[in-house]
Amino acid sequence: MLGDFSYSNPTKLYFGEHSLEGLRKELPAYGKNVLLVYGGGSIRKNGIYDRVVEILKACGKEIVEDGGVMPNPTVEKLYEGCRRAREGKVELILAVGGGSVCDYAKAVSVSAYCEEDPWEKYYLRMEDADNKIIPVGCVLTMVGTGSEMNGGSVITHHGQKRKIGHVFGDNVFPKFSILNPVFTFTLPKYQMTAGFFDIMSHILEQYFSGEDDNTSDYIMEGLLRSLIHSTRIAVERPTDYEARSNIMWIATWALNTLVAKGKSTDWMVHMIGQSVGAYTDATHGMTLSAVSLPYYKLILPCGLPKFRRYAVNVWDVRPEGKTEEEIAREGLERMEAYMCELGLVMSVRELGVTEDMLDGIADGSFLMEGGYKTLTHEEIVGILKESMRART
Amino acid sequence: MLGDFSYSNPTKLYFGEHSLEGLRKELPAYGKNVLLVYGGGSIRKNGIYDRVVEILKACGKEIVEDGGVMPNPTVEKLYEGCRRAREGKVELILAVGGGSVCDYAKAVSVSAYCEEDPWEKYYLRMEDADNKIIPVGCVLTMVGTGSEMNGGSVITHHGQKRKIGHVFGDNVFPKFSILNPVFTFTLPKYQMTAGFFDIMSHILEQYFSGEDDNTSDYIMEGLLRSLIHSTRIAVERPTDYEARSNIMWIATWALNTLVAKGKSTDWMVHMIGQSVGAYTDATHGMTLSAVSLPYYKLILPCGLPKFRRYAVNVWDVRPEGKTEEEIAREGLERMEAYMCELGLVMSVRELGVTEDMLDGIADGSFLMEGGYKTLTHEEIVGILKESMRART
Repeated sequence: MLGDFSYSNPTKLYFGEHSLEGLRKELPAYGKNVLLVYGGGSIRKNGIYDRVVEILKACGKEIVEDGGVMPNPTVEKLYEGCRRAREGKVELILAVGGGSVCDYAKAVSVSAYCEEDPWEKYYLRMEDADNKIIPVGCVLTMVGTGSEMNGGSVITHHGQKRKIGHVFGDNVFPKFSILNPVFTFTLPKYQMTAGFFDIMSHILEQYFSGEDDNTSDYIMEGLLRSLIHSTRIAVERPTDYEARSNIMWIATWALNTLVAKGKSTDWMVHMIGQSVGAYTDATHGMTLSAVSLPYYKLILPCGLPKFRRYAVNVWDVRPEGKTEEEIAREGLERMEAYMCELGLVMSVRELGVTEDMLDGIADGSFLMEGGYKTLTHEEIVGILKESMRART
Repeated sequence: MLGDFSYSNPTKLYFGEHSLEGLRKELPAYGKNVLLVYGGGSIRKNGIYDRVVEILKACGKEIVEDGGVMPNPTVEKLYEGCRRAREGKVELILAVGGGSVCDYAKAVSVSAYCEEDPWEKYYLRMEDADNKIIPVGCVLTMVGTGSEMNGGSVITHHGQKRKIGHVFGDNVFPKFSILNPVFTFTLPKYQMTAGFFDIMSHILEQYFSGEDDNTSDYIMEGLLRSLIHSTRIAVERPTDYEARSNIMWIATWALNTLVAKGKSTDWMVHMIGQSVGAYTDATHGMTLSAVSLPYYKLILPCGLPKFRRYAVNVWDVRPEGKTEEEIAREGLERMEAYMCELGLVMSVRELGVTEDMLDGIADGSFLMEGGYKTLTHEEIVGILKESMRART
């Protein structure tokens, strides 16, 4: 824990099978008009929409509808949500969905009363939120992003081919989040496993940085071991409550600022993955899975002690009689086998990336300096080419 | 994560070498009169007292002095502190010290405006705090108890030979805590290592319970590995900032409610240790170290799979060619070797326990039911006798 830092996380969590009751406890603290934010029709089909509306009505709330949030929320949708929030004079934004819906809700919360273009202020210029912020609550139906307990908010501008995440301060964190593992049971396998890898990537982006001895790294090793164990169960039995509940909890703690404390962090995989997303509109977690191994294989020599530690402490590689590099590479081999076992996308080709996009994707990838290597444009193109060669 | 639960932790942490500056940021939010709570004279000798007073004065605060908090704060001291807090009309209690000082500050915060005897209401009857609560802030100078980010508060009634801890809700948690690892450098070795074992015991009390597959157990394994690693460095080099900072951070997260989520917990070691403390006034962490191994050796057959897991995942015991019980016992042997290496007290005899106290100590130990075995009076006496036979 070498750096100085502060820590506070104001989000209250209600976790478990009966956690939707937490919504009833929270609602009285907020005003009458509630912007109800959600995605496609899935929460209408599985009954979650009706249960949430019943509680909102029982608590005397007026609902302002804002459905149709897309998997990669666009800047046009953001403008529309801001209009609805202002016109409806909403005093709470309730996000019911996965990370995209929560991210969008936070974007609306800081943008509705922003006096200039929020895309420019918050995403291109990355400024702090200094105008009126509408409080946000979440009912999570999909795990992965950790958006339920942090200030992260990713918005896509297709016109500019830019997908940008702003991490807001704790004044923008959700005030409360409802985490019911059962709500995640009906998710299709592709979205489920994409979320699993998003969690893993969040941890690895924070783990593969720094050369100091940091408790955060030990916590992350624990989270990774639990994640690997429970996701293997969940792909076999998606309704295994124990496994799905562990995964839901890991997702939250992987990205609620705790494990980054005292550390530098990397996030280069997310930068490349988001740029792939801006070009293809592919599912976020799969953009990460498709570029991770080529990236980690490339930077392994620059962070050898950490990759060795990863192999031994997370993947149980036996070090005896092997060189440091052999141990480290065996860790990545086990990770690759696990990813294939989960059925993750290993090639950006499968996500719709074509040769002519590579330069643009590399240009759209912010270069991060907290990891073991700062990439060049050519190295990003090389990672994408390597990914395109992977089996589909 | 099988149980339903809620989670929120309102304490803001300032961590690091320059973290005392956080006090300057926090003070303006509170009223003029501040109860300055501390223990013996150590903070006067090492200059921390002067630095805190300088900041309080620079922020325009009036200081109401309340020094002399003893290592096991007594109910008489509590009554005195309540009087000072009321008469001084304090609007913030600033605890500068270790766990005892923080515990005492929280006790005063809920008791100053309690209309009945706070010992009876809060400690004997364990009621929730429903009267006016004075906010608490902490400047930590000693690690172990985790009191800086939880609602725990242990008070001793020597007349009744009772040492009782009440865990208050998050309305009683410190509003902010300043964690500067450098402030812990000057602690004598005995207090330092007692604090180290207090941390370990907090984790083990939560780890050794339940038979489900729980992410909290994986997080605890990470915390334990980091703790063992860093405490070994710290006993050799007490001013190793990296080691001391890791330990400080682990202590906070070992007992701020996170790792208990979704689990049952035990706390039997603390119950026996606290009863030993009520009879001997011994240092808290050493009462725990002296009873832990006899307790864990006794209950090992009742929680064999967990003790086996502990041996392999925390102490790197190789399982090949051994029975489950051999693996589990080897884990406890490694723990014992580590405890001796740190110079911890292994026998309650060394703490002043005599044969004639054993029945009384057993009677004074609350019987917990969340672990792998609910003890009988005779078994507690047996644990104490076993501890008395340990080398001193």
